Amino acid sequence: MTQITPHLTRLVTSSDPVPAPVQAVCRLSMLDWMACGIAGASEPVSRIVRAQVLEEEGARQAVLFGGGRAPVRAAALVNGTVSHALDYDDTHFAHIGHPSVAVLPAILALAEQRDTGLPEVVDAAAIGMEASVRAGIWLGRAHYQAGFHMTATAGAIGAAAGTARLLGLPDAQVAQALGLAATRAAGLKAHFGTMGKPWNAGIAASSGVEAVQLVARGFEANPDALDGPHGFGATHFGESNDPGIDWQLPQVRHKFHACCHGLHAALETLGALDLAAPEVAAITLRTHPRWLTVCNQPAPTTGLGAKFSYRTALALGLTGRDTARLSTFSDALAVSADVVAARELVTVMGDESLTEEQAALEVLRRDGQRLTAFHDLDAPVDMAARTDRVQAKASALLGDETAASLRRLIASDRARAADLATQMEV
Amino acid sequence: MTQITPHLTRLVTSSDPVPAPVQAVCRLSMLDWMACGIAGASEPVSRIVRAQVLEEEGARQAVLFGGGRAPVRAAALVNGTVSHALDYDDTHFAHIGHPSVAVLPAILALAEQRDTGLPEVVDAAAIGMEASVRAGIWLGRAHYQAGFHMTATAGAIGAAAGTARLLGLPDAQVAQALGLAATRAAGLKAHFGTMGKPWNAGIAASSGVEAVQLVARGFEANPDALDGPHGFGATHFGESNDPGIDWQLPQVRHKFHACCHGLHAALETLGALDLAAPEVAAITLRTHPRWLTVCNQPAPTTGLGAKFSYRTALALGLTGRDTARLSTFSDALAVSADVVAARELVTVMGDESLTEEQAALEVLRRDGQRLTAFHDLDAPVDMAARTDRVQAKASALLGDETAASLRRLIASDRARAADLATQMEV
Repeated sequence: MTQITPHLTRLVTSSDPVPAPVQAVCRLSMLDWMACGIAGASEPVSRIVRAQVLEEEGARQAVLFGGGRAPVRAAALVNGTVSHALDYDDTHFAHIGHPSVAVLPAILALAEQRDTGLPEVVDAAAIGMEASVRAGIWLGRAHYQAGFHMTATAGAIGAAAGTARLLGLPDAQVAQALGLAATRAAGLKAHFGTMGKPWNAGIAASSGVEAVQLVARGFEANPDALDGPHGFGATHFGESNDPGIDWQLPQVRHKFHACCHGLHAALETLGALDLAAPEVAAITLRTHPRWLTVCNQPAPTTGLGAKFSYRTALALGLTGRDTARLSTFSDALAVSADVVAARELVTVMGDESLTEEQAALEVLRRDGQRLTAFHDLDAPVDMAARTDRVQAKASALLGDETAASLRRLIASDRARAADLATQMEV
Repeated sequence: MTQITPHLTRLVTSSDPVPAPVQAVCRLSMLDWMACGIAGASEPVSRIVRAQVLEEEGARQAVLFGGGRAPVRAAALVNGTVSHALDYDDTHFAHIGHPSVAVLPAILALAEQRDTGLPEVVDAAAIGMEASVRAGIWLGRAHYQAGFHMTATAGAIGAAAGTARLLGLPDAQVAQALGLAATRAAGLKAHFGTMGKPWNAGIAASSGVEAVQLVARGFEANPDALDGPHGFGATHFGESNDPGIDWQLPQVRHKFHACCHGLHAALETLGALDLAAPEVAAITLRTHPRWLTVCNQPAPTTGLGAKFSYRTALALGLTGRDTARLSTFSDALAVSADVVAARELVTVMGDESLTEEQAALEVLRRDGQRLTAFHDLDAPVDMAARTDRVQAKASALLGDETAASLRRLIASDRARAADLATQMEV
């Protein structure tokens, strides 16, 4: 029975600097998140939530993806929603949640209002994202299985932790802010597949920063509302697991394919082999059986369907399309002659010996040669390789010039939150 | 296993008018709520939440208790918090929640923005309050016992239902708005005794109207997020009880004493006997044993302690103080000589044969006469008597002139929401 409030309070008020490798991963997630947010700004849910907030007008404290300004809380709501609209942002498997979309919108909006420099932004972002993962580990799989959207619930706690770090709140107020965020933290998996899913990320970001702003004004809340007998853990199927003190953030994973997460390991195996359709006689993909009911549409006729189809996604790769690009998963490509032909080369099989993050590919080439490839999304990834891939993804989403300019900005210790904001309104 | 979404959707989109007696009770609750909100506007939690919202500026769509204007969602947040700050607002025992503070702030703010006439305001308010009670019955005692603050959770559903009624949303959008409110609905009893408790009422009001505003803009949400397999009921210890189709709102109860609810039946027995301290030799109060650990402080030395003290509250009544007035429960009166002397006449005993809403008083007068009185808060109350008492309470809180003017306004079918708003900024 771990008490999470003192654990997170120590993390937030620690005078130890965030280790450099953790900061580096945090900057990578910031780049990835910015790319997702800028690319998602015109999605229908993004337009609706932004329009509602802009109709409310309000102090122009922080910028919105897609343009316009709003109070910090409202900007966190919009930018959390927008950056999760494409479902292309980062994931952490320790708790199964999306740390960036729940935490970074709150940090960036508050940092912009306070004209914070990038090093402090990275520090608060790393603490907030780390806190969201640890809160999620503390809540445990039972919380997620019960129906709670971890991104929304653990995310609100993380957003509160990160913004409390940015404000430098003392211990007693950090605990109260976490407690107050706990009474506001909410989000149901029942909205998966609807606009409600990205909105859940937005409400996490906005609830976290709202709780911190109130406590910073003198609002007095129960500092034990996460852990106490009627606290968030007790009421939300929490397991009270010990999250440990090792940094979790470096294990965050970025998506490199604009489709269902279940397809990613398979696409990685294909990428490792550098094949083209004309060379291939037959392909057999083995994956964890759970995915067969999630993303194994055999012959989809839409781009959305292609995002949930092993055969189509592999066929897109075999015919030379870049699966990092949103436009690759279009209705037209899903039914194009070469993709449909390449799809016929692929057989998909469930394999209980694989984890959910693994895939194995067997290829018979037309020249009779047999090739195999295996990928595990959970395997450690070299930082340089990760950086290159996130950069390539940002280029695919935003174009080379914008992506390169973002990368320089996020790497600079002289940059300020306002410089990032300028990029967000593009 | 009752499905609450179709049940509430039918209620919201019904073309039947709300029955006149239900409307009458609703108007009474509006008067009571306005009095609580105006009287609570300077409480510390009220000042903090209002200051935060005013710092955000924003469209001047709806008025705040205590002055200032804000967007509808923000006004609902502030006015829900402010009107619950004194904990003097109405209660419904069918689900154990405070219907007015969660629902009326949302209705009034949206009605003011839309320049709605009072009859439509009363219609939407009655539907919303009724929906909150029925949602609470559907969730059941298990939800409350688990640690959820019914005012906050069922209240958000009620606020969504009432504002959907005001906007005249069609069936499909009402169901989506209820579903979207379900992913935002939150509030823990862990914050009882802190500023978090009234804030929970504010977040209910604001979450409900926010969900409706988004759906009215075209936001698409899961319409089954209350009832579905991972819906709010399943994730929040819901019992799926059938709330039935009889109107629950008429059974709402207004507080007539500015102290813990556990003292009210006892104060009613005293009021029935018209006694003064000098006539009394001894008093024995019998109450349900549960209250003995809640509000039986034998000799408190503060006004706050007096609110949780049978002996002190009865002594205040015996010495002629009006227990409807907030100022009666002051530090000075709690230790005044006549109150301390009168307190010594009172003995308190637990009695398992009484319900939690009942109290029995036995008085031995100095002249040897014995008197008894019994009160049951659950017993039906004559509408004329209720009206007189709510009016007297409003007078005690606001003064006769303001109370009379409010009463006239709320009784008038020619009044508009804006007229009520003018009174709220006093």
